[in-house]
Amino acid sequence: MASSEGNKLWGGRFVGNTDPIMEKFNASIAYDQRMWEADIKGSKAYVKALQKAGLVTQNEMEQILTGLDKVFDEWSKGEFKIKPGDEDIHTANERRLKEFIGDPAGKLHTGRSRNDQVATDTRLWLRDAINTLKELALPLISTMVERAAVEIEILCPGYTHMQRAQPIRWSHWILSHAVALSRDVERLEDIRKHVNVMPLGSGAIAGNPFNIDRELLRQELKFDSISINSMDATGQRDFVAEFLFWASMCLTHLSKMAEDLILYSTKEFSFITLTDAYSTGSSLMPQKKNADSLELIRSKAGRVFGREDKEAMFDTYDTVHAVLQVATGVISTLKVNQPAMEGALSPDMLATDLAYHLVRKGMPFREAHSCAGKAVYIAESKNIHLSQITVEDLQTVSPLFDKDVSSVWDYNRSVEQYSAPGGTARSSVTSQIEHFRTWLQAQKQKP
Amino acid sequence: MASSEGNKLWGGRFVGNTDPIMEKFNASIAYDQRMWEADIKGSKAYVKALQKAGLVTQNEMEQILTGLDKVFDEWSKGEFKIKPGDEDIHTANERRLKEFIGDPAGKLHTGRSRNDQVATDTRLWLRDAINTLKELALPLISTMVERAAVEIEILCPGYTHMQRAQPIRWSHWILSHAVALSRDVERLEDIRKHVNVMPLGSGAIAGNPFNIDRELLRQELKFDSISINSMDATGQRDFVAEFLFWASMCLTHLSKMAEDLILYSTKEFSFITLTDAYSTGSSLMPQKKNADSLELIRSKAGRVFGREDKEAMFDTYDTVHAVLQVATGVISTLKVNQPAMEGALSPDMLATDLAYHLVRKGMPFREAHSCAGKAVYIAESKNIHLSQITVEDLQTVSPLFDKDVSSVWDYNRSVEQYSAPGGTARSSVTSQIEHFRTWLQAQKQKP
Amino acid sequence: MASSEGNKLWGGRFVGNTDPIMEKFNASIAYDQRMWEADIKGSKAYVKALQKAGLVTQNEMEQILTGLDKVFDEWSKGEFKIKPGDEDIHTANERRLKEFIGDPAGKLHTGRSRNDQVATDTRLWLRDAINTLKELALPLISTMVERAAVEIEILCPGYTHMQRAQPIRWSHWILSHAVALSRDVERLEDIRKHVNVMPLGSGAIAGNPFNIDRELLRQELKFDSISINSMDATGQRDFVAEFLFWASMCLTHLSKMAEDLILYSTKEFSFITLTDAYSTGSSLMPQKKNADSLELIRSKAGRVFGREDKEAMFDTYDTVHAVLQVATGVISTLKVNQPAMEGALSPDMLATDLAYHLVRKGMPFREAHSCAGKAVYIAESKNIHLSQITVEDLQTVSPLFDKDVSSVWDYNRSVEQYSAPGGTARSSVTSQIEHFRTWLQAQKQKP
Amino acid sequence: MASSEGNKLWGGRFVGNTDPIMEKFNASIAYDQRMWEADIKGSKAYVKALQKAGLVTQNEMEQILTGLDKVFDEWSKGEFKIKPGDEDIHTANERRLKEFIGDPAGKLHTGRSRNDQVATDTRLWLRDAINTLKELALPLISTMVERAAVEIEILCPGYTHMQRAQPIRWSHWILSHAVALSRDVERLEDIRKHVNVMPLGSGAIAGNPFNIDRELLRQELKFDSISINSMDATGQRDFVAEFLFWASMCLTHLSKMAEDLILYSTKEFSFITLTDAYSTGSSLMPQKKNADSLELIRSKAGRVFGREDKEAMFDTYDTVHAVLQVATGVISTLKVNQPAMEGALSPDMLATDLAYHLVRKGMPFREAHSCAGKAVYIAESKNIHLSQITVEDLQTVSPLFDKDVSSVWDYNRSVEQYSAPGGTARSSVTSQIEHFRTWLQAQKQKP
Repeated sequence: MASSEGNKLWGGRFVGNTDPIMEKFNASIAYDQRMWEADIKGSKAYVKALQKAGLVTQNEMEQILTGLDKVFDEWSKGEFKIKPGDEDIHTANERRLKEFIGDPAGKLHTGRSRNDQVATDTRLWLRDAINTLKELALPLISTMVERAAVEIEILCPGYTHMQRAQPIRWSHWILSHAVALSRDVERLEDIRKHVNVMPLGSGAIAGNPFNIDRELLRQELKFDSISINSMDATGQRDFVAEFLFWASMCLTHLSKMAEDLILYSTKEFSFITLTDAYSTGSSLMPQKKNADSLELIRSKAGRVFGREDKEAMFDTYDTVHAVLQVATGVISTLKVNQPAMEGALSPDMLATDLAYHLVRKGMPFREAHSCAGKAVYIAESKNIHLSQITVEDLQTVSPLFDKDVSSVWDYNRSVEQYSAPGGTARSSVTSQIEHFRTWLQAQKQKP
Repeated sequence: MASSEGNKLWGGRFVGNTDPIMEKFNASIAYDQRMWEADIKGSKAYVKALQKAGLVTQNEMEQILTGLDKVFDEWSKGEFKIKPGDEDIHTANERRLKEFIGDPAGKLHTGRSRNDQVATDTRLWLRDAINTLKELALPLISTMVERAAVEIEILCPGYTHMQRAQPIRWSHWILSHAVALSRDVERLEDIRKHVNVMPLGSGAIAGNPFNIDRELLRQELKFDSISINSMDATGQRDFVAEFLFWASMCLTHLSKMAEDLILYSTKEFSFITLTDAYSTGSSLMPQKKNADSLELIRSKAGRVFGREDKEAMFDTYDTVHAVLQVATGVISTLKVNQPAMEGALSPDMLATDLAYHLVRKGMPFREAHSCAGKAVYIAESKNIHLSQITVEDLQTVSPLFDKDVSSVWDYNRSVEQYSAPGGTARSSVTSQIEHFRTWLQAQKQKP
Repeated sequence: MASSEGNKLWGGRFVGNTDPIMEKFNASIAYDQRMWEADIKGSKAYVKALQKAGLVTQNEMEQILTGLDKVFDEWSKGEFKIKPGDEDIHTANERRLKEFIGDPAGKLHTGRSRNDQVATDTRLWLRDAINTLKELALPLISTMVERAAVEIEILCPGYTHMQRAQPIRWSHWILSHAVALSRDVERLEDIRKHVNVMPLGSGAIAGNPFNIDRELLRQELKFDSISINSMDATGQRDFVAEFLFWASMCLTHLSKMAEDLILYSTKEFSFITLTDAYSTGSSLMPQKKNADSLELIRSKAGRVFGREDKEAMFDTYDTVHAVLQVATGVISTLKVNQPAMEGALSPDMLATDLAYHLVRKGMPFREAHSCAGKAVYIAESKNIHLSQITVEDLQTVSPLFDKDVSSVWDYNRSVEQYSAPGGTARSSVTSQIEHFRTWLQAQKQKP
Repeated sequence: MASSEGNKLWGGRFVGNTDPIMEKFNASIAYDQRMWEADIKGSKAYVKALQKAGLVTQNEMEQILTGLDKVFDEWSKGEFKIKPGDEDIHTANERRLKEFIGDPAGKLHTGRSRNDQVATDTRLWLRDAINTLKELALPLISTMVERAAVEIEILCPGYTHMQRAQPIRWSHWILSHAVALSRDVERLEDIRKHVNVMPLGSGAIAGNPFNIDRELLRQELKFDSISINSMDATGQRDFVAEFLFWASMCLTHLSKMAEDLILYSTKEFSFITLTDAYSTGSSLMPQKKNADSLELIRSKAGRVFGREDKEAMFDTYDTVHAVLQVATGVISTLKVNQPAMEGALSPDMLATDLAYHLVRKGMPFREAHSCAGKAVYIAESKNIHLSQITVEDLQTVSPLFDKDVSSVWDYNRSVEQYSAPGGTARSSVTSQIEHFRTWLQAQKQKP
């Protein structure tokens, strides 16, 4: 027949076994070996359930448990040798178990599918990973909060669209980023709940046919609950997608913070200086000191996304793991240049205050905004600071202006107006700091 | 000087006012007018807070409230006329208010920034949108659950990698998708909480300087809580990103379901038939009946993502809004071809059962899997069904085989083994149905 | 039977015709009507081929051509009325044609499929769109080049990692962006070639069965070549994906340019000022003047991607169409602050020159780099400029230093060193300008 | 001052040198060592230019060239040892050179920046990578074309929307995918041109100050042309983005082909069978044979995108490198089941032909389409094949029907109609095969 004869015509690259390129392409052991501990943990629980269901004897169970402990030991000591044919961590561990205890190893997979194992191990691994990331995020937030507490006196320009907008406390800026990170920690806990659902006992697709006690498995593996439908349980990776999205959002937050700090560390702004530990030089230009740590943090946003596989999960975890630590290092060691920050405050940033001055005298805000705008225009035309316009000139704009306008030109006073919750007044910033201290305390006490 | 003279050389396209292309580019009224109701609601609350803070009189407040009601009326009746210069919904509403009540309108913006308004309105709008989507998702789930209940007798192949894997109940397949959607509904409620935080009272960046009672605002607008830091409050759109991610995950779920159904509706599978209402023909081929509804559903996944702006939010909402309804229509009207489904069950799909048969006689699973594999090979060599191998031939594979092997060749019995929670046995599927009925009841009773 | 009875239980939302939500979901007329002209053009060519193949008579052909001209007229005058049922532009035009000429209209679709039409019309439309975008890109590049020519005297810091690196000519910065845009124009021409391949005559999938003269069609529609395989021809949208990628790259280039300009327009840099036409104010802060035009340009990068459908194509086209014009406006009208630019040059930016000074005296560069680094350290320790270190102090670093080191501290001299092709020396920048003038001339003369 | 005292309060994690996490984060040697050969090649060319410019002596040049050859040898033999501090391949090679030849090594970097090196090495590496990928793509296309030639007799259904549409030749399907891949090869050559532009001689940003002969460099390194502007040359990575986009498109093509083949390899279609070399089994289900090779190919689309860095470039290259080979293996070894393919042809797929039958008798196509649709309806109502309707019944639809309608029910005749260029008729498919043979010949003769 055409097709079978044809084979000779165009020739396969090889005959017989699996194409080696395909095999390498298919193997996941290079990265999924990171789940070795989760895999052993899952198998230890499963053999107990098999014993309870009468599928292995007490003695077989004990052999398997002892054998798994030996496999565990090899991994812990870095002595586990991956062999050709170990296409994934599950195969590798079972192969080694068999070398240790022989035949009973063959019973461990009864009623369990590879999908079962992959789904279970991935959830166990990610549960731990989430805990670790939370433990790295809290000290970063704590550093930010305590830095905000110590440096509460320092004022600086608040920017919108990279243009000077209003005077704020430097601590207010720090806390704006701490808020975002604290939301990330809270979301991480939501995700932890979605991760902590046990798929084990779902088989390939139809379920488990051996009266496995899934509640026993759940308790052994400390899952919060049990999956509802076996097809969904083995097939879905929503929790990985959620974790990747979370990482993307968290990295975006750190990226935005880094973006501001890169700007603040330019010669033109000179608000902050990084320590040498977080800077690098140039191979060509001897004077260069680049904020490379910040650039790296900034560049990581947008990186994770799209793929919902284990490889992406590990890669993303490593990225967030490093970024959180570098960010903590940067934030805890950067030097603030208070004179530069306060020197960047300029009277035109009080134009809103000038409008508010009129509002307090009864003028509708829209009209006051317009009057203040006219004052800004006068100052620009005369090439003087907004604060240098004479009362007479101001009165051409509005008769409500009087000598008391001079009280407007005080950055501290300006900042202190914003005493509503969330504002930049000292009392409001102090409340935010207290809020975070309490929140951090509560976070640390969580299980 | 070079630069100013230069202007003449290369010429601007225009002088004076804003470049009209830039203006159009910048305007958002074309899409953000959808938030007209949220904007009016926010303003009504804000004027009450202004009155309490002494910034507008009782009388001014009443004028503003009455004026806003008139604006509301115009929008409800579709009579609101957008004018040139109405760059966004906030500007448009305030412009109209001023036309109705004159000067007092100018007081409404006191201490409030555009950022304040955009952030508040977006959250109010999205809160409602989330409620609507939940109301559309529940009937879809309900349809699926009731269909699963009615059609619980029907068996069909369960597929992995698009290859026949194990016999399952058709209801088991339906419920595997219902589970995913029920998670989506639950996540939507988490997001609702993140959306329902009030930014109003944050000003441009530094906060609100007029002792505005944010708690009063919160109650008026039925927010759950108040934002912690004003810079974060006006700048962040995390909740939009969360919503977009949610939509992406929900659409992916529906897409996967649609993908299966498209396959099941091919001539080759012939498991299901769509009603004409969800099919379309071809302009060229008279016999064609395409599952266009399913293709549309499938194609929507992966669409939403990336942009975190209002435009993306509206677009995404519209997509999910339509997809949920079409999916409900499709699922409620498709016809199931029970004979085709059951005809697609073939004895090789019971190879796992054959292995389990040996396991139940004491053979380790790995060995049993290998024996069953050999039996499959014999059947293929002889070009007969797996169920047609003689006991004698089976005994060449393992002496444990006996006459009782005939009990294996029963699809119903196969399915009934999977009685562990989550499995495809009738009892287990029924439990899933009960679970969802209770869950749906609970969902409907939520506020 | 379970399934059909079932229908009653869970009820469809409707019976009979197409679900209206599905219909709306499916319709593309809202956006594909933009291809009305391409659609008519394609039909006019096709009817000629039908006549040549003997499938319509000369008289029928003439009726159809006249009818299509009437449809054309209605669209040109904005008088074409879309009716319910006009699901796409192809249906709409044929429906209208039938209203004009009756039965012969029914012959126009002979052997042609909707896929044929969509693929052909999309390519025709995109071919024109590409021409238009090229016509908008050239004046932008031209503006940049002429501005570079006029302002060649102005020096400014060149930045890497947002830190001052080396003095350059302002024109060098402008031209670095012009190069990127000129590559975009060249790539656009490559894409034009890929777009300009005719699919018409491919039918639904199997080809055209009526001896249609595809070469005649190609000439009528001015395509460069004919598609090779009918399945590929009607199914692929590679050319749309290429266009979207192109747009994404072009917008990224403009985005990077905008990012620099936003930085240069901050108060802290003060290198440039936008005209009012490209700035906007704040509803709250009277002094604010935001570089909104630049922010819009910056924000458009990363927007287009992913979807490969017509809707994305139109959206992307509109975006690039607007961005190119706004960018031209911004670049042609921005004011350069030469004193601020040159004031930002500081002696430490000549540290590389200091190293080169030693290199010219025979020291290996790596050693010279180290010596210059030590000099930078001395200056920082003494809190003086690098140029203020005494020759004696420099000699502690290297005995090669002598009085002639003073020649290093001259920004103009520094810039003039870089006379290799592509460098920032006047001669080299002038060559670049000449290169672009010639290139622009050549571009304009292309068909 | 607050900030410096503050440091003690929140404590840095370390003092002194670079944060080790940051260092690891920043290092690229783990992946960029793949460019070792390109880096040495670039340095050898550069030292020649330095010698010509009088910056190194003839003797120093020879020492450097000899030293670089030694470094080359170590890499070729796999003996190069990466040391701590070798942050990237450029540093590593220069460090090793210095160990070999001492001081003169320090002259190699004169006037050259790291950016210069990275940009140059990346282009050299990618140029070779592109050649390799082209060499892998051609045999794949060739396999497809020759397979199409041998199996030209086999008919099968052509599908649209996964529904049977029209009978086509199996070869027509193969060639539809070959066309896409041939476009990919052509695009790869376009990209090669964009890659093959030399940045070397651009310095950090301002250019090269030492009269380096860039034309000499170009010839040594076999680049097509020289970059125009030094800032653009060192900063842009457009060519990497283009390569990533190319890979994404190529993988999408292979993914679509794999998607069809997965479908064709289902039990329900049974059109093709993969050899064991490209299939894998299930750990649980003994009968399973999954088309894993195809699933891997399918899954790779959409993977590459977004990041434009070297890491993405290497990863993408490896992916395409493997996918092309696996695809070639799959295509060359799969077995075609001609009876199943032809058995899937059904008379309703000739409904278009039935309409064309009427068209040939003078009926307008739209009317003929409607008549054929009615015939389909009659056949469905009577539950018979379309070909089984009696002439009498057909005449109720249109009096034009006659005995000669029987000629319609011939799949071969149907296919042979499509003889216009690009169609599925034997002559047309043969022309396509000839086209590709010529094209492949031409490709192989290119330099």
